[in-house]
Amino acid sequence: MKENRFSIGVDYGTNSVRAVIARLADGEIMSESVFNYPSGTDGILLDPRDPNLARQDPADYLEGFLTSVSDAVRQAKDRFADFSPENIVGIGVDTTGSTPIPVDAEGTPLAMKPEFQDDLAAHAWLWKDHTSVAEAQEITEWAKTRPEGFLAKCGGTYSSEWYWAKILHCVRTSPNVAEAAASWVELADFVPAWLTGNLDPETMPRGICAAGHKALFHEQWGGLPSEEALRSLDEQLVRFRYSTKAVPVDHAAGTLTAEIAEKTGLPAGIPVAVGAFDCHLGAIGSGVKPGTLVKTIGTSTCDIMVSPLSQSIADIPGLCGIVPESVLPGMYGLEAGQSAVGDIFNWFVKHVVSGDDSAHAALTEEAQKLKPGASGLLALDWNNGNRTVLVDQNLTGLILGQTLHTTAAEIYRALIEATAFGALTIINRFVEYGIDVQEVICCGGIAEKNALVMQIYADIFDRPVKISRCSQTCALGSAIAGAVVGGAFGDFASAADCMTGVKEKIYVPDPESASVYRRLYALYVQLHDAFGKTGKNPPLENVMKDLIAIRQECR
Amino acid sequence: MKENRFSIGVDYGTNSVRAVIARLADGEIMSESVFNYPSGTDGILLDPRDPNLARQDPADYLEGFLTSVSDAVRQAKDRFADFSPENIVGIGVDTTGSTPIPVDAEGTPLAMKPEFQDDLAAHAWLWKDHTSVAEAQEITEWAKTRPEGFLAKCGGTYSSEWYWAKILHCVRTSPNVAEAAASWVELADFVPAWLTGNLDPETMPRGICAAGHKALFHEQWGGLPSEEALRSLDEQLVRFRYSTKAVPVDHAAGTLTAEIAEKTGLPAGIPVAVGAFDCHLGAIGSGVKPGTLVKTIGTSTCDIMVSPLSQSIADIPGLCGIVPESVLPGMYGLEAGQSAVGDIFNWFVKHVVSGDDSAHAALTEEAQKLKPGASGLLALDWNNGNRTVLVDQNLTGLILGQTLHTTAAEIYRALIEATAFGALTIINRFVEYGIDVQEVICCGGIAEKNALVMQIYADIFDRPVKISRCSQTCALGSAIAGAVVGGAFGDFASAADCMTGVKEKIYVPDPESASVYRRLYALYVQLHDAFGKTGKNPPLENVMKDLIAIRQECR
Repeated sequence: MKENRFSIGVDYGTNSVRAVIARLADGEIMSESVFNYPSGTDGILLDPRDPNLARQDPADYLEGFLTSVSDAVRQAKDRFADFSPENIVGIGVDTTGSTPIPVDAEGTPLAMKPEFQDDLAAHAWLWKDHTSVAEAQEITEWAKTRPEGFLAKCGGTYSSEWYWAKILHCVRTSPNVAEAAASWVELADFVPAWLTGNLDPETMPRGICAAGHKALFHEQWGGLPSEEALRSLDEQLVRFRYSTKAVPVDHAAGTLTAEIAEKTGLPAGIPVAVGAFDCHLGAIGSGVKPGTLVKTIGTSTCDIMVSPLSQSIADIPGLCGIVPESVLPGMYGLEAGQSAVGDIFNWFVKHVVSGDDSAHAALTEEAQKLKPGASGLLALDWNNGNRTVLVDQNLTGLILGQTLHTTAAEIYRALIEATAFGALTIINRFVEYGIDVQEVICCGGIAEKNALVMQIYADIFDRPVKISRCSQTCALGSAIAGAVVGGAFGDFASAADCMTGVKEKIYVPDPESASVYRRLYALYVQLHDAFGKTGKNPPLENVMKDLIAIRQECR
Repeated sequence: MKENRFSIGVDYGTNSVRAVIARLADGEIMSESVFNYPSGTDGILLDPRDPNLARQDPADYLEGFLTSVSDAVRQAKDRFADFSPENIVGIGVDTTGSTPIPVDAEGTPLAMKPEFQDDLAAHAWLWKDHTSVAEAQEITEWAKTRPEGFLAKCGGTYSSEWYWAKILHCVRTSPNVAEAAASWVELADFVPAWLTGNLDPETMPRGICAAGHKALFHEQWGGLPSEEALRSLDEQLVRFRYSTKAVPVDHAAGTLTAEIAEKTGLPAGIPVAVGAFDCHLGAIGSGVKPGTLVKTIGTSTCDIMVSPLSQSIADIPGLCGIVPESVLPGMYGLEAGQSAVGDIFNWFVKHVVSGDDSAHAALTEEAQKLKPGASGLLALDWNNGNRTVLVDQNLTGLILGQTLHTTAAEIYRALIEATAFGALTIINRFVEYGIDVQEVICCGGIAEKNALVMQIYADIFDRPVKISRCSQTCALGSAIAGAVVGGAFGDFASAADCMTGVKEKIYVPDPESASVYRRLYALYVQLHDAFGKTGKNPPLENVMKDLIAIRQECR
């Protein structure tokens, strides 16, 4: 029966949107189509005067859905005789986030209105926009004065990447946009709302994933911060409080409108799941369960774990969020992440060595030949700040240990190692607070394609690293949500049983490498604490000398 | 009279040797010729297993003299009707150092004997060979137990770049070479000895510059450390103690042999000055005098000041040496330096961005457009260790402040700034110990060609930076020594009056840039002390944040 039933997953990434059609029987991807956002630089609107700014044109999202989904449907029809759009049971959507969009009272993004089309503040504020550092600090200070304990569930620090910080920055710096906005809608909510013709900001379904992790939504204080609470932060924010109850991805946002159905070659009325963030649905697409850490590795990294609601867990400092049902119904969703991973490798290739995409393969090949510790290099993975566990965007990259012989491949490897050390810091934080990390499942392009990165991760984590079987786990997770809201499965666990799995190749730690990396990690922690923590002040006089000693031993 | 009298200066650099013929009347270079050492990589013999190793083939030095001098003579004859080799009054030689060469009892370099030609330990140990770190530490510890106070005149720490450390490392790691060696001869002494046919290691003239700065030679304890003292360090070193009195460059080593005269188109019997290090003669060629710091900027940097013997001066910690008459007769010679400057820029271009020589110009042009502080980057100039004031080769480079937008040109500029901060640290040390630095005169290819580097130096030093008029100051300094030993001038001051000067273009500090750089330098000092000093342990949690704040202000 499930052999010829399907669901659609649509995954909005940083630079492109991808639509897949998945078979319910085994999660096989029947077709996929990628649409690169046409605006700006690789889909991102930049401001040369401010490296912190990163915006997107909401029109790209709409065009991206129509183009990629209709193309995926056409491909599936062309290739598979037993495929029919009539057998699509549901649609799921995942997106980057927090990526809030200012909209008018009808839910139209301000950027799509002529009077705001040239105003960057009226566009989508991409997750990695870091213009709101000051406002994030202000919100953190404000939250500390409040009785609710707003920040206990999101690591104790509000981030400049998040919903209210971005809105507050807009209020302060682009009051015309803030005044024209009737509401701010997360991209993860905007797309399902548009697909189902339910754009009214007062009533559109809002997902608990975005609301709980980024907008301080929690049942404990009755949803979003109260009007009174928001007023004590800034009077202007009160208007942006919605009173809808945010719901998990097993809820339908509605059904596909006839207009969009026609444009994409689908029947109208297909159930559309409430949206969630890419890595959360990626975790579902990777088969997340208690004890499993799922790392979605892309330009940045999102680390997801789940823990049954029936077991109480501590508030873990530095995490992006601990939100009931933000990933799976019945489970706490625990989110952590690194502000840049693939972006760091891309930065080095594009901006430093002026290479093209092929340079990644060449540098990887050279880096593969190097032994752990042999370069004498050590780096911090903070080129885009540190999301977990420091929650501080006001940090930058660091590379040390260079000699006059240090090569580009050695630096490239050191950057890979730095991202692994950053990831290990997150794992250690989970473990320290009683959330055991028995296995790591990675997904995303780098996990798929770069065996060196995965082996280094296994060696540095000193844990087996598995790779999700499906190469498009976020989109697959969305398709699973579509299948669940379409009624094809009774719950996510049985959907995951059918539709997810890991690849045969498992990266096993090499004991010798793991042992060298333990020593390097101790030095990483010294740098991490010295530059990232207040009042820690570890002595650093040993760092360069220890690296030289390790280098000499390892050559 | 001096209009048609000339002298020859021969300058042995790291990668090549240069011969010039200078006119005594005004220091004008009549002809010059460069010979690139043919052996190894850019003239340096490397060991892929050990990035610290840097050796040279002594045969390159001999071939280099014959080729470059005969070519310079031929060119001068071709171009100037009033030039005649008969009017050459003297020859001076400067070299890198400490670059000791193991020789047999006849003064023949072991590397030039068939049985040792493949043994890297039998070759010249180039100044930047850092294989002897452990031995340098051992010598430092040993010196501290001795009553003589050996290290008071060389900054309190013996360097792995120096004479006895290299010999001791050879004794420990290549005993066959050490046993075959009758003596170890500095390159600066070897060339004049060879030119004058006086290679007997027992009697060949040794220059006070090399001996005083690198071999612990001081009148106070009767020349080199006594046999008893050397024995207490290592029995094997006793054989290498010579009892000759080391002398300054106003002494002649002898006169040119007929054989070499014939091969180079010169008359036999021309006086040859005792040799000295390149930067010391470069200082003379730049017109060094009390209050003037001369920086010879090449692959590394040597900073020279002089101070009258009649005024007592303190032992300045961290300096490479305070040696009576090592630069000019009648003056203390004060030497400091940075282990890498041009080498850092070359490293970045060659090994990181894989550029050719033209990349320097392109990166400089881009870097020129950047404002001080606007990149948010800060670097330490320690890729080759730190010679002054830390005297520690066991240090490495560091770059911090990278974002995902940091460009190669920004890094290049940060590396330039790092070398300037390192240079300022030296200036500050002189000033702190009562040696006023009224002006800075730079010489060398970078000083000549790169206006951006010089403007950054002026801004960071907050002092005017002048450029030596002659583009080949080291060779000119050697030619001046040749002129003095040839009797054309009564002393160095009158020779300098005729033969040296600075260019019209003087780099004046820009007050606004200087002010930004003062703030960046304070952060540099934090990093410098944290990674380079024991027990200092300054807090660093402000560094990245302050750089971001400065970056935001400066954009």
